[in-house]
Amino acid sequence: MTEAIKAAPIEVPDVGVPGVHRIEDYALKELMPTVLDMTRAVYPHDEIFGEYCTVHDYIAAPPDEVYDYLSDTRSLAEWTYSMRGFERTDTPDLWVSDDRIGTETRIYTRTEANPQARTVDYHCAWDQGEHLWMIYLMRVVDAQKVFHKPGSVVLWTNCHHPFYENNGYPETAPADRPVWVGDFWNIFAAGHLLELKNLKAICEHRHANGLPIKPEWMN
Amino acid sequence: MTEAIKAAPIEVPDVGVPGVHRIEDYALKELMPTVLDMTRAVYPHDEIFGEYCTVHDYIAAPPDEVYDYLSDTRSLAEWTYSMRGFERTDTPDLWVSDDRIGTETRIYTRTEANPQARTVDYHCAWDQGEHLWMIYLMRVVDAQKVFHKPGSVVLWTNCHHPFYENNGYPETAPADRPVWVGDFWNIFAAGHLLELKNLKAICEHRHANGLPIKPEWMN
Repeated sequence: MTEAIKAAPIEVPDVGVPGVHRIEDYALKELMPTVLDMTRAVYPHDEIFGEYCTVHDYIAAPPDEVYDYLSDTRSLAEWTYSMRGFERTDTPDLWVSDDRIGTETRIYTRTEANPQARTVDYHCAWDQGEHLWMIYLMRVVDAQKVFHKPGSVVLWTNCHHPFYENNGYPETAPADRPVWVGDFWNIFAAGHLLELKNLKAICEHRHANGLPIKPEWMN
Repeated sequence: MTEAIKAAPIEVPDVGVPGVHRIEDYALKELMPTVLDMTRAVYPHDEIFGEYCTVHDYIAAPPDEVYDYLSDTRSLAEWTYSMRGFERTDTPDLWVSDDRIGTETRIYTRTEANPQARTVDYHCAWDQGEHLWMIYLMRVVDAQKVFHKPGSVVLWTNCHHPFYENNGYPETAPADRPVWVGDFWNIFAAGHLLELKNLKAICEHRHANGLPIKPEWMN
């Protein structure tokens, strides 16, 4: 049995910051009307997906293998809807591919991954590779810890960067391209959930069939 | 200007997994009705917060300082609603405190943090410190990268572990305790958002006043 080793807890000075809700100042029954009012039967799309777009899913495959696959930029050629034809650039770790959702669109990607935290961040941009402002923040979590069963949980967040509304580099865009990536912001939640289901299907299919999740051709 | 260095993109074998939606098989205009149907004016509470509970917010303070503060377990004594009276236990890095939301409740916490990814995971449990199944997954992101302005973005996800529904260690609970932590799952989104606003208020107040975000007493 784990026991406290000190006779007295640490002393914490008064926080003294306006607008902070702590139990000393707001008893639970006093705060509950506010909390219940914030808890709704339904939430508007913009409140949930306007500023941040997060999707989550469970994958029946080991977290380190899912992480290893995701952290290879070329995996995007498999599980995304429209990123294809990856080529290395003359900048280390920077890849360029086609984003077939935008007619004649080149997309640049640099992946930053951390095996201990199992974070995988895709730093991307349409048209130019100097300022990678489209950032896909992903994380693979051990489902044994958070759901008490083997497998992975994948968290995926995008933030509504102002360039989704106004292209910061219009001079790099192909003339007369009919779409801009930010036109799709409203359907990112649905689109990313579909792609996450792609990732889930691929990982689960390979794991269930005794295949490596990261395919041979990536090694 | 960054240029592709290969004459031809990498070859990707056919993915060949059922249930995967890729542009080769589903043209955008073909998939759009599905995507639009998944995109609603409103979403029910359980669809958004039933299995995963994620809250996000922007904080006008530097990400490394916010991370440094969060990654110290004792910060929970300031920005959470009800965790107070932290004491070290005889297990390294494991703290015990009161969770005043549960009458007479002790809560155990071990923090796993990664300064490169800026992830901060609080592994917690009510009543016992052997199996820390209540996991608060947090991450501090540089707002300059994702929002094109200085500051931090904090992501916070909890997963609906089965013990929220059925206490896995009922023998460790105080007799006749009127509440269980899982009773609050439905209001986690609102409660965690309130606590995230606490964190925001504390960090912004200190940063705006030239104070260290991690207070002196924690050093």
